[in-house]
Amino acid sequence: MTVDKFFEHVDKQQDDYVQRLREIVAIPSVSCDLAYRKDVVRMGEWLINELEKLGATTKRVEPGTQVLEGQTIDLPPVVLGTYGTDPNKKTLLVYGHYDVQPALKEDGWRTDPWQLTEDQQGRMFGRGSTDDKGPVLGWLCVIQAHKDLGLELPVNLKFCFEGMEESGSEGLDDVIHQEANAYFQGVDAVCISDNYWLGKTKPCLTYGLRGVSYYRITIAGPGQDLHSGVFGGTVHEPMTDLVNVMARLVTPEGKILVPGIMDEVAPLTDEERATYQGLEFSMKEFCAAAGSECNVHEDVEATLMHRWRYPSLSLHGIEGAFHAPGAKTVIPAKVIGKFSIRTVPNQTPARVTELVKEHVKAEFAKLNSRNTLDVDCLHDGKWWISSPNHPNFVAGARAVERVFGAKPDLTREGGSIPVTLTFQDALQKNVLLLPMGACDDGAHSINEKLDRRNFVEGIKLLGAYLHELSAIEL
Amino acid sequence: MTVDKFFEHVDKQQDDYVQRLREIVAIPSVSCDLAYRKDVVRMGEWLINELEKLGATTKRVEPGTQVLEGQTIDLPPVVLGTYGTDPNKKTLLVYGHYDVQPALKEDGWRTDPWQLTEDQQGRMFGRGSTDDKGPVLGWLCVIQAHKDLGLELPVNLKFCFEGMEESGSEGLDDVIHQEANAYFQGVDAVCISDNYWLGKTKPCLTYGLRGVSYYRITIAGPGQDLHSGVFGGTVHEPMTDLVNVMARLVTPEGKILVPGIMDEVAPLTDEERATYQGLEFSMKEFCAAAGSECNVHEDVEATLMHRWRYPSLSLHGIEGAFHAPGAKTVIPAKVIGKFSIRTVPNQTPARVTELVKEHVKAEFAKLNSRNTLDVDCLHDGKWWISSPNHPNFVAGARAVERVFGAKPDLTREGGSIPVTLTFQDALQKNVLLLPMGACDDGAHSINEKLDRRNFVEGIKLLGAYLHELSAIEL
Repeated sequence: MTVDKFFEHVDKQQDDYVQRLREIVAIPSVSCDLAYRKDVVRMGEWLINELEKLGATTKRVEPGTQVLEGQTIDLPPVVLGTYGTDPNKKTLLVYGHYDVQPALKEDGWRTDPWQLTEDQQGRMFGRGSTDDKGPVLGWLCVIQAHKDLGLELPVNLKFCFEGMEESGSEGLDDVIHQEANAYFQGVDAVCISDNYWLGKTKPCLTYGLRGVSYYRITIAGPGQDLHSGVFGGTVHEPMTDLVNVMARLVTPEGKILVPGIMDEVAPLTDEERATYQGLEFSMKEFCAAAGSECNVHEDVEATLMHRWRYPSLSLHGIEGAFHAPGAKTVIPAKVIGKFSIRTVPNQTPARVTELVKEHVKAEFAKLNSRNTLDVDCLHDGKWWISSPNHPNFVAGARAVERVFGAKPDLTREGGSIPVTLTFQDALQKNVLLLPMGACDDGAHSINEKLDRRNFVEGIKLLGAYLHELSAIEL
Repeated sequence: MTVDKFFEHVDKQQDDYVQRLREIVAIPSVSCDLAYRKDVVRMGEWLINELEKLGATTKRVEPGTQVLEGQTIDLPPVVLGTYGTDPNKKTLLVYGHYDVQPALKEDGWRTDPWQLTEDQQGRMFGRGSTDDKGPVLGWLCVIQAHKDLGLELPVNLKFCFEGMEESGSEGLDDVIHQEANAYFQGVDAVCISDNYWLGKTKPCLTYGLRGVSYYRITIAGPGQDLHSGVFGGTVHEPMTDLVNVMARLVTPEGKILVPGIMDEVAPLTDEERATYQGLEFSMKEFCAAAGSECNVHEDVEATLMHRWRYPSLSLHGIEGAFHAPGAKTVIPAKVIGKFSIRTVPNQTPARVTELVKEHVKAEFAKLNSRNTLDVDCLHDGKWWISSPNHPNFVAGARAVERVFGAKPDLTREGGSIPVTLTFQDALQKNVLLLPMGACDDGAHSINEKLDRRNFVEGIKLLGAYLHELSAIEL
């Protein structure tokens, strides 16, 4: 009954919620650009103010300084909040971010990116609409709706909203580790709404992310760039060595050529295979998203497995070689090849790096080159995997069924959301990824949008999830 | 007797000549930079003025316009000149260029690049000192010295001085072809002093240049750059295809893998092999110039053969991939690999391109990729070869013996000086490359210099060459 009343109220109030989304999309909180830093801070302060108005207590954490465009400036605040402290209720920690990617009308936006604009299909265009202002606001709307109705929230909430997610979450990990046994004391579960459905119509719960290990192969020889007329044919050219080594990393079909790299990969169980059935995903959609029929695998199952549960290796580019349009007859003296491996359970970053280094060195040795080679790992982030059978996920699944009348897709992501693992490690609690937006929302792209349906039903979903969570045994 | 008097006079007047070199080094005639275009024109006008003062008639040719930094501007003039029209004398056409490479003190120059500065070893540092203002001025000093001594020049001279050599000689070919049967009518031989000795102490005559054919391999697939987290392992990545194809072009030892590419290469004769003996060149010097011991071949003979008379293939870089410092997890949607082949007698550019295209397409086909490939030739320039037995070269060799008391090295160059072939083709006359500078002059580099000895003995050499040329049967 309570939840139904809440649903009805959300439907009724939806224009208000959209209006408030319009209000915050208008704050251009671009975290990577010095000129917008004041707006990022303004957005953080908007949240503090709204949380306080709702009756939450807040804590503004200043995570320190950063150097941006040559200037040392304050990082935007991490906004912590507490709504409810009833010891008889579970406590859920909610994470979101209030900063956004840059957006310029000239980049090809059909509408002003800072003016939420809804079309006749209910698509609400605006920077940050889906990533991640819509979901962040969604949590606030859930509280507002309950207050409007005189209903108590079934759980206590803690908030952690950051303003640097689009710029590497600088400063956040320290805050989380510092507050794990302080402000976040007593948290029972974590929920993050900052990814996307697999398709356009069916909600999902996300229980896995790949890790990423980023490598650099540096090959150097000549003391300076050489003229290919004078030296071509007489020196060991670093570029020749590098493309030979890079060609020995992965096949055109995506098979990683590093010996032993698959040894740690978790075997595929029948149970896991079954979860790949009936997902809202088609090869047509996949090719539409990729922009061409450049798919390696013919079916959905293989494609998603290679996105989610198998490692992949991508070559990103070469630093130090000629990269401009036109023709330049240079022999580059030092070239740096960049590639990364998306890692999966149960690979360990240290072992992956060990195998990569061994392989790269062995392949380079075969070339008998007089140049020198160095291979190093620029950064690595571990994969994350949870269980869709964990009560936190079951609560999420029940909420989906309640709002949408269907079971959610159980998905993983090929990319990384590093904060997920940070929360899990620091708090030792289960983390649920419960997305609001659809696969075609275009976060980071021009014409980013959030469908009105996803926003409204998403608010219902977040609310319903709180009720399901309160009822389940964790 | 005449020549000896000329030599003595040059020795006596050398400080004057250096002072005049100082005067023109101070004109920053950088052809690739809009800000210096007025100085390029000023330098051209300086030459016209000096030629007229010496008694030459001149013709200022305006070769048209170019687009530079978004602006359409006039190309600098091609300065033509005639000194002497005696039908009983031979007529020599002399080519040189009066523009220079850019130079900034901040780049690491020890002295002001626009202020000719001589050190205790007689090294005269300054941009353009050796490339090509020293040699151009050298010709004028030869005339001046003869005038001072009341001596007649033994040949008629025609001049062709351009101001765009460092920027692809834009407009020059048309001028040469237009004037071949007009202003250049009656020319018997051509001399260019715009390259360098093989070593530091021994002069040379240069009788060959490699050609160059520049290629672009374009591989495209996805509709836009993709995120490697989302798409890694599921799409045919253009970078993977490209490094695989590029790795099949040339071995780390420089062996070109294009089938048939060596078929047209002229066989090495015993006579030719003999010319590689006794050259002023050592592997130590080679490694010093390359900046490391990255040499493929162990001896001078093999090294110089691979620079001069065998083709080479260099990989220059990749356009469209990630090339900046740092880490970016992009799958580039379209990448363009650049490479060039230095071509040699008797390769034909059309056949080389045909073989390259066939090979690249065949290698790409092996990958079974769903991406698309295109391979095209951006530009090609033919090799040039002359005979050191031609009377024009014999005259040059005799002049070297007269000034330096030793036979010149007979050299070729691995790079191109395209105007050489243009003159030969347009005028159907022999072209002699008669360098003034030493191997370590550092044209195009910081701290470019011309040794006083090379300048002074070089003026003598150019003058002696005119006398030898007048005496020989062409």
